[in-house]
Amino acid sequence: MKTQVAIIGGGPSGLLLSQLLHTRGIDSVVLERKTKDYVLGRIRAGVLEQGLVRLMEEAGCAERLHAEGFAHDGTLISFGDETFRIDFTEHTGTPVVVYGQTEVTRDLYEAREKAGGKIEFNVEDVVIQGADSDTPHVYYTVGGEARRLDCDFVAGCDGFHGVSRQTIPLDVRREYEKVYPFGWLGVLSETPPVTHELIYANSSRGFALCSMRNESLSRYYIQCSLSDKPEDWTDEAFWQEFKRRIPADQAGKLVTGPTIEKSIAPLRSFVTEPMRWGRLFLCGDAAHIVPPTGAKGLNTAASDVHYLYNGLCDFYENNSVAGIDSYSEKALKRVWKAERFSWWFSSLMHRYPDQSEFDLKMQAAEIEFLRSNKAAQQAMAENYVGLPY
Amino acid sequence: MKTQVAIIGGGPSGLLLSQLLHTRGIDSVVLERKTKDYVLGRIRAGVLEQGLVRLMEEAGCAERLHAEGFAHDGTLISFGDETFRIDFTEHTGTPVVVYGQTEVTRDLYEAREKAGGKIEFNVEDVVIQGADSDTPHVYYTVGGEARRLDCDFVAGCDGFHGVSRQTIPLDVRREYEKVYPFGWLGVLSETPPVTHELIYANSSRGFALCSMRNESLSRYYIQCSLSDKPEDWTDEAFWQEFKRRIPADQAGKLVTGPTIEKSIAPLRSFVTEPMRWGRLFLCGDAAHIVPPTGAKGLNTAASDVHYLYNGLCDFYENNSVAGIDSYSEKALKRVWKAERFSWWFSSLMHRYPDQSEFDLKMQAAEIEFLRSNKAAQQAMAENYVGLPY
Repeated sequence: MKTQVAIIGGGPSGLLLSQLLHTRGIDSVVLERKTKDYVLGRIRAGVLEQGLVRLMEEAGCAERLHAEGFAHDGTLISFGDETFRIDFTEHTGTPVVVYGQTEVTRDLYEAREKAGGKIEFNVEDVVIQGADSDTPHVYYTVGGEARRLDCDFVAGCDGFHGVSRQTIPLDVRREYEKVYPFGWLGVLSETPPVTHELIYANSSRGFALCSMRNESLSRYYIQCSLSDKPEDWTDEAFWQEFKRRIPADQAGKLVTGPTIEKSIAPLRSFVTEPMRWGRLFLCGDAAHIVPPTGAKGLNTAASDVHYLYNGLCDFYENNSVAGIDSYSEKALKRVWKAERFSWWFSSLMHRYPDQSEFDLKMQAAEIEFLRSNKAAQQAMAENYVGLPY
Repeated sequence: MKTQVAIIGGGPSGLLLSQLLHTRGIDSVVLERKTKDYVLGRIRAGVLEQGLVRLMEEAGCAERLHAEGFAHDGTLISFGDETFRIDFTEHTGTPVVVYGQTEVTRDLYEAREKAGGKIEFNVEDVVIQGADSDTPHVYYTVGGEARRLDCDFVAGCDGFHGVSRQTIPLDVRREYEKVYPFGWLGVLSETPPVTHELIYANSSRGFALCSMRNESLSRYYIQCSLSDKPEDWTDEAFWQEFKRRIPADQAGKLVTGPTIEKSIAPLRSFVTEPMRWGRLFLCGDAAHIVPPTGAKGLNTAASDVHYLYNGLCDFYENNSVAGIDSYSEKALKRVWKAERFSWWFSSLMHRYPDQSEFDLKMQAAEIEFLRSNKAAQQAMAENYVGLPY
């Protein structure tokens, strides 16, 4: 098989890139390790920056997002007994849009299928070869059958554990990592969200996050130990702990119910440099991971897709390599900004096992500065709604 | 001897408080452990917030400060090969004033002497008694002779190693501390400063600061190891290292010469709570220490003096204890803001021995965010010129 762009990974990054390229007549094939149902079963964040919304519009996939997504003009931050609000729209003129990553992925699959896009599922044993030559190609198997995909470029959208990053030789790659000493226990619950806007809560018992998918579907998280297992947490234990971490007035009106999903995710900051090796380009989690605080994961993947898409269009339409040659630098510049924000916001909102009394006071002082200082709120809001591409 | 306010410590905080009280007809006695010459021989920071300038005006001691001080409308920050400027006046309408702490102290001594203020020097064996009663008194010796000072209130302005803080029982006090894994080697040199405005430089070899006292007196610092001794550093070695840390264009025009002072100071963040125990009030370094990055030490002492001075006036003039009762809370609220800023700015500008590659990238990203984001610059400028009292 032959295509212009081989896309490794059928998550939102790969599908968005594939669909965007399609709108410009550039052919791609998506290779996905799992099934579509599996991909759509993964519960992820649900806060979209305007940059991603615009890419979805450009891809022709924003109809349902506009109909069903919720504009959030601000967020609540609670510390101890105090809750305050940061108004995104006041500070930046821009809200964020709450719309699940799963729904983004679903819309992209629908668009790709409608357009007859080529997606191979259950793909195994992917090997990317010749990425450092003019004739890259991808070997893989489906159901035991060996296949080969020849292409001009390979987009590595296969996540943190994918083969794309590993394809770049170690002496070319430089990796940066921070592992946080806690995880997030998240539940999905068919209950009305306790608030419309998100609440990020730093309580003496640890972090909690109130978020929502729609008026009858809530997504709640608590900071937990890395050694915890989801099965250690009964629904009752979760609700009890969650209530103790969120502001008392919210806890009083919290509607609880059975959870329909419960999982624990570790928190990690990770970046690999460069994000391009020859004709292989890394996008999203394949190149970088952020802790979920501030919801920068999908949004940063989208900014990568934006730069790569524009670079590839420039190549095919204008015969220019300027865009692909500057891809890694441009993408990384914005990646590090998102990494900084996610690290800062995570550091601000979690309790750390090795935190000294002084460290705690600094956290309190930083939250108080954010509460009381317009410029600090402005800086936070600009990051939260997404820095310009 | 009897007075209204016994002031322990004849540094700038104690003298400023004494002189301010004098302008309102409130009597005080200052007890200083050393001689005046010794106090005036201590080289300290030299960046004054407007709040301190206004207090000096109120104390009638601002004439020379206005004549000889330099208004600085901004500061330079350098990281690697890049230097950028943060404009204080643009962001806050307010410059800072460069005028040595030694000069502030000299002006205050002059005013106190002119007014016949009582200052005892060479005071030893200070013991504060009855601070938790209505009749506090201070025992001390001068030249082996025991003396007693009866008073209404005691102001503990005797620095980090003074007896005032130690007088507060341990079960009442709570202390917060962070010790930084490096020191500052500072030199004073009768050479024209390399730039008029300060340069805070984060170089791969560690932090450096270019500052100035006047057009022919420079004050320069480099981050050094805690195990270094001033005598380990020849002038030549200092200049060589300093040049490697400041921007190349500045290094090229640096005028070097013999240093007239060379000393090493450790970096510490420290706060004690509360700042009041009965009729004893702590001011300045007696209650809190900041690392010198951002020059908040003297300025935060001044805000303590402001709150205490107003509280005492309120007591003597209006027979109200509201001001002294809220002293600790008000002073600490601003102290923690200054602690946060000094900690943040120190964290941003120094190289840490245990810094991971990821940590270094976060430092770079934070400096880049400060360079490129107006709101971040605004927040920094507001802190640097001094948050409102």
